[in-house]
Amino acid sequence: MKVLIVFAHPEPKSFSAALKDIAVKKLESLGHEVNVSDLYKMAWSPALSEKDFGEDRANPEYLDLSAEQENAHAKGSICDAVRLEQAKLSEADLVLFHFPVWWFSMPAILKGWVDRVFSRGYAYSTGKKYETGHFKGKKAMLCITTGTASTLYEPNGIDGDLMHVLWPIHNGMLGYTGFTVYPPYAAWMPARVSEEDRAQYLEGYGNRLQDVLNENVEPLFFHPWSDYDQTQRLKPEVKAKSGVQWNPAVGQSFEEAAQESSMKV
Amino acid sequence: MKVLIVFAHPEPKSFSAALKDIAVKKLESLGHEVNVSDLYKMAWSPALSEKDFGEDRANPEYLDLSAEQENAHAKGSICDAVRLEQAKLSEADLVLFHFPVWWFSMPAILKGWVDRVFSRGYAYSTGKKYETGHFKGKKAMLCITTGTASTLYEPNGIDGDLMHVLWPIHNGMLGYTGFTVYPPYAAWMPARVSEEDRAQYLEGYGNRLQDVLNENVEPLFFHPWSDYDQTQRLKPEVKAKSGVQWNPAVGQSFEEAAQESSMKV
Repeated sequence: MKVLIVFAHPEPKSFSAALKDIAVKKLESLGHEVNVSDLYKMAWSPALSEKDFGEDRANPEYLDLSAEQENAHAKGSICDAVRLEQAKLSEADLVLFHFPVWWFSMPAILKGWVDRVFSRGYAYSTGKKYETGHFKGKKAMLCITTGTASTLYEPNGIDGDLMHVLWPIHNGMLGYTGFTVYPPYAAWMPARVSEEDRAQYLEGYGNRLQDVLNENVEPLFFHPWSDYDQTQRLKPEVKAKSGVQWNPAVGQSFEEAAQESSMKV
Repeated sequence: MKVLIVFAHPEPKSFSAALKDIAVKKLESLGHEVNVSDLYKMAWSPALSEKDFGEDRANPEYLDLSAEQENAHAKGSICDAVRLEQAKLSEADLVLFHFPVWWFSMPAILKGWVDRVFSRGYAYSTGKKYETGHFKGKKAMLCITTGTASTLYEPNGIDGDLMHVLWPIHNGMLGYTGFTVYPPYAAWMPARVSEEDRAQYLEGYGNRLQDVLNENVEPLFFHPWSDYDQTQRLKPEVKAKSGVQWNPAVGQSFEEAAQESSMKV
């Protein structure tokens, strides 16, 4: 299997880096081919702009980013930096996103990898999103570190349920482009726990990777297109099972949906 | 009143820019002082790194970003680019974040403004977050444009409820740092609607700003510290009212909480 790790932490001795290193070691020991996009090391430029499109623009007078992405994809004129990442992504069967949670989301350098690499034409297009997304057949998983304890990320925790906090990433970036998404692996505040606990996080991550490769982990559930009506809302008779959506038309409570779902980690 | 607009779109003729321009015009016509951080125009560098800290590091051997932010804040040695934005933010009574929704979140250039400007020591510190956050007394609001229709952002919509999608920003960036947060102003897929509808979006935004200034809009509800126990989870007797959290201990359903709350737009 070909694995791409997209890694976003500036400190090579950080615990985030240790998780990335253990993943490379574990995956290679199992005979898989691993490619790492170490965004800080690559000095990845995060801001999506006209620089991605060179001179052969669809419209040099007005910057419509989606239209330019589509144009560049059709003409093969996207800039080299993006082209290289897209080539790595196209080859990968499994993509792992390794990052510390900053402000309830990914570091800007990683968000900018998504903004630029998941370009229209390449990563999605008309009628090709979610279940029919371009990356159908590929697997993805987040490996995160946090600054606070897991209790804060429970449904009644002050930060909100982890699966809610990550919904824009799980559903919006990965589900949207067609990935099969596995539950995130979270190392809770590694900076404040013991050496033993950190060692356990690393070992646990190795085991989790093995489970994902062996398909011993249930992926997150996203509703298939057949559950939606023409307005892209769940049909009145469909109970929401994503753990984040809920369907007032069925009289279903959100809590019930959340308990039933595979979104719990 | 002093208003800071943080604007993240690379095209000066975009509808996002038109919303920003109307905000400046409206606010100035009402006698307010407006400062705009036009991130693309400023060529804002999004990646938080050691470059923010200069030579007077807490620990030059190991990059602990929070520790370095705190150290730089204490010594006044944060880099000029961040210092300038922090000065604008410190002066502002109201901060407006203007951006197109990219991948269910903000463009990387804006995320990188938050990563760098909301630095530890300046924007939050031990015991000073949420209700006791550093920006207590300041108001904030998002002004967003989308590529899809509002129906997709309903509780049973394929993208998930808008208030869930924006929770990491509303709660995680703005609530966390102490802002009073107003419901977002959304212009739904302005690229695909009529000139009349676009004109209405602009007019509606002007009116919304006036309402916010006159305190005619109910801010989003975040639970006060007194509702939480020592694990930072809602006390067993407290019903969740944020519209995103829910409290299994009360037997309260999420849907019920969402209906009751001010999170609906």
